[in-house]
Amino acid sequence: MRSGVCFPALWLVAWMYCLSPGPVEGGKVLVLPVDGSHWLSMKILVKELARRGHDVLVLVPETSLLISGSGSYKTEFYQVPYTKAELDGKFKQLNNGPFHKPPGIAEMLANIQRLVNFTLLHVKACENLLNNQILMSQLREGGYDILLTDPFLPCGSILAHAFSIPAVYFLRGLPCNLDLKANQCPSPPSYVPVFFSDNTDTMTFPQRAKNMVMHIVESYMCNVIYGHFDELVSSYFGNDMTYSDLLSHGAVWLQRYDFIFEWPRPLMPNMILIGGINCAKKADLPADLAEFVDGLGDDGFIVFTLGSMVSSMPKEKAKLFFDAFRQIPQQVFWRYTGPTPEDVPKNVRLMKWLPQNELLAHPKAKVFITHGGTHGIYEGICNAVPMLMFPLFGDQGDNANRLVHRGVAEKLTIFDVTTETLLATLNKILHNKSYKEKIIELSRIHLDRPIEPLDLAVFWTEFTIRHKGVTHLRVAAHELNWFQYHSLDVICFLVIVFVTVLLLTLKCCLFCTRKCCRKGSTKRKSD
Amino acid sequence: MRSGVCFPALWLVAWMYCLSPGPVEGGKVLVLPVDGSHWLSMKILVKELARRGHDVLVLVPETSLLISGSGSYKTEFYQVPYTKAELDGKFKQLNNGPFHKPPGIAEMLANIQRLVNFTLLHVKACENLLNNQILMSQLREGGYDILLTDPFLPCGSILAHAFSIPAVYFLRGLPCNLDLKANQCPSPPSYVPVFFSDNTDTMTFPQRAKNMVMHIVESYMCNVIYGHFDELVSSYFGNDMTYSDLLSHGAVWLQRYDFIFEWPRPLMPNMILIGGINCAKKADLPADLAEFVDGLGDDGFIVFTLGSMVSSMPKEKAKLFFDAFRQIPQQVFWRYTGPTPEDVPKNVRLMKWLPQNELLAHPKAKVFITHGGTHGIYEGICNAVPMLMFPLFGDQGDNANRLVHRGVAEKLTIFDVTTETLLATLNKILHNKSYKEKIIELSRIHLDRPIEPLDLAVFWTEFTIRHKGVTHLRVAAHELNWFQYHSLDVICFLVIVFVTVLLLTLKCCLFCTRKCCRKGSTKRKSD
Repeated sequence: MRSGVCFPALWLVAWMYCLSPGPVEGGKVLVLPVDGSHWLSMKILVKELARRGHDVLVLVPETSLLISGSGSYKTEFYQVPYTKAELDGKFKQLNNGPFHKPPGIAEMLANIQRLVNFTLLHVKACENLLNNQILMSQLREGGYDILLTDPFLPCGSILAHAFSIPAVYFLRGLPCNLDLKANQCPSPPSYVPVFFSDNTDTMTFPQRAKNMVMHIVESYMCNVIYGHFDELVSSYFGNDMTYSDLLSHGAVWLQRYDFIFEWPRPLMPNMILIGGINCAKKADLPADLAEFVDGLGDDGFIVFTLGSMVSSMPKEKAKLFFDAFRQIPQQVFWRYTGPTPEDVPKNVRLMKWLPQNELLAHPKAKVFITHGGTHGIYEGICNAVPMLMFPLFGDQGDNANRLVHRGVAEKLTIFDVTTETLLATLNKILHNKSYKEKIIELSRIHLDRPIEPLDLAVFWTEFTIRHKGVTHLRVAAHELNWFQYHSLDVICFLVIVFVTVLLLTLKCCLFCTRKCCRKGSTKRKSD
Repeated sequence: MRSGVCFPALWLVAWMYCLSPGPVEGGKVLVLPVDGSHWLSMKILVKELARRGHDVLVLVPETSLLISGSGSYKTEFYQVPYTKAELDGKFKQLNNGPFHKPPGIAEMLANIQRLVNFTLLHVKACENLLNNQILMSQLREGGYDILLTDPFLPCGSILAHAFSIPAVYFLRGLPCNLDLKANQCPSPPSYVPVFFSDNTDTMTFPQRAKNMVMHIVESYMCNVIYGHFDELVSSYFGNDMTYSDLLSHGAVWLQRYDFIFEWPRPLMPNMILIGGINCAKKADLPADLAEFVDGLGDDGFIVFTLGSMVSSMPKEKAKLFFDAFRQIPQQVFWRYTGPTPEDVPKNVRLMKWLPQNELLAHPKAKVFITHGGTHGIYEGICNAVPMLMFPLFGDQGDNANRLVHRGVAEKLTIFDVTTETLLATLNKILHNKSYKEKIIELSRIHLDRPIEPLDLAVFWTEFTIRHKGVTHLRVAAHELNWFQYHSLDVICFLVIVFVTVLLLTLKCCLFCTRKCCRKGSTKRKSD
């Protein structure tokens, strides 16, 4: 009897084990990251995947800005056709514009041209990688389960498609919303504001008209921005394949935002929101810095950085910041590597690097002066610190608008800022309680989530490994062209059928009426 | 020094506490459920909320089919203008049709009429509740934080709006996709199949044309189905408010499906997928039943139920099932309360109630014969048991199509089933391994999730309590009418502008050309 009970119990355990997905052990993950700040948050996921026992190989360009090796994951360096000086130069061109030229349409177009030049460099690096036969066959034979990449550059998606392995995308978003277009995600221009339109999600008629015009212009800009990508993709895969076609094969889109920051809009089932992934884990402040900030008075301190890639500014521009900081009681921690004037105010500490997230987490952090990159923004939101924003390029202007609209930040342009406007804006944020109250509310909602963004990113990456893709979340819209997607062929057909039936009915009626009339008149005549 | 370190540390703790959302203690939850099988899964959430310390009050109609009191939550009974016999009668009308009439368009329309009659009964019950001044003012003064309801019937949404508290919706979906329409969720008819269309998400041109026609017909049907709801809502709130307008105020939509079952399509940020919420927790099988099924041979057993509301069928129909079961070696557990013939086969055990989820979880469960309600379907998927489906009414036909398309089920119509077809189909499912293999794969994907559906439902309910709504996920599309939503006004405006500019330019050109020509001819003349 005892064994009679025991046997089915064992059956049941074996059965449950058979159904359980179980942990993924030894998944092989190939990573092709994008250099610069993009790498900073992807690195968190890469390290966590390695920590969980996956075999992670990161492909690193020989010349890079921030990507480097690590003890926790393997790296493979590949040759690129540019020097460090050339790369730095292109990057400086991207960053320095806003210090010297007023913002406007001309500057925006120049910015796009700089962006295209910058990405062209990486397209060439990608060609180098793809032509490296030895490395490519080594990777192909590596038996990787998935490719984790940032689709801001095309090389990762190309490798995934070439090796027939699922691609997991890690990104905030792509210029001209190519991510949404490629993933068939609806974005009605009536309430989803177009980038650079300065619109919110609630628009007047003129604003909606502007949004629509910019929506159309955006489609053209897409061709300009992704022209080189399209050429590379079609030259590699043929069949006039575009970069958007290639992206549409993405298994999972790990998107670094949530609706505390973005305007709410439709999502697709394979879009996983992991906004705030970069600020969840905090190290301790270095002991000396911790002691210093703990000892500060109630006025607290200000954290000032313009992102991981911009740590300096023209001398005269820096001077007006120094002049403003001299007039406030707050301590200022400024990530600054530019020329240091002799009379640096006593309350300003210049640092080559600063533990931004950890400083912002301190209760005495009062204002965060930032360029408006999404990493910094989420650190500001996580830690509930109001922001003063100096957007420099790319999405930063729009990012700043979102936070200004929510009443948790102010925005100034670095080109025409003066000591007076800087001081007035800083004092406004410091002394008007509403900024703090609103960002505390925003922070509470952002942090109130059923699962941490990093755990979610890990889950979906491992899910893709376990099930060799995420096909059950792939919409059938991918198999339709735009004419079919919008049912235009069906509408045309139904209209033709309707009009034909209508005309035939009319003709029949007319025919019958005539016949009746003729009969009537013949009858009358015969009468 | 010690206190110097300790003080800021305390500050930090206090600060982190201030940001943390913390557990909700003593949230007040008013619940207005829908009777019948709808209640079975909502009850799971209601009980869990009560278990977590919330003050839960369930409003129960005096005459109900399945809703009853419980030790874990409070109940308040309200009078309804119908007897148990009348309610049972209306319900039987809904269920019995398919036993007596062949499926077809006429039967579908009759079904809709029966559905309208059924809901009309509940609309009257709702009017009774709304006119119960004492109970209404008692509820209004109760200070409830949220109202949890199933929007299949309108009363919950009306109460939430009347009491100005957020509504949390718990549902699978609404007839003619009103849930998606009210929540502004895009559903392109080019790849989202319309209910009753028999389409999948991949359609040929004729199928897409049919889908579009049915999409248009659906809009008309919506008016028929929700006519009484619209009248009730506008009579209560005025301003020609429709039921769809009212629903659009819903804070969170807890939707009982996932994309293992549904065709993948766009989602809105406040749509939370909790498919499978009803099968996560399993009790032990009663000891005698456990011993019996454990002792069965390798042929295993079949579970046969037609849902919580249908436990009987006409005698001659039952006979053909008995005749088929007599010819198979499997044990059959059949939830059946109809007339029992004398010669019930030895391998059939008739039960007034059976622990469906627990039986299906047993490794010897071979086939699940079901009507195709979503509760049963998810129990089949969770436990990886292939299905034989006899859809009776409502969404069940479409549910069955989804599973047949995925190769994990077969579908028969209860009207014209014969012993032979039943036997052949059962044997096909029992002996063709692909059904089992495919449902194991489906089950694995379904169960592989970052958070359990019940925990997710609890989280979002408590989130709504903590933040007094979920406004950050509400899309601005709610403020637009359909003309504005589709940017038709903007498109008209831009076309007018474009045509005007074109005409003016043409006119200018014509004017200039004429002038030039005239000058030329005058010159020639003067020459």
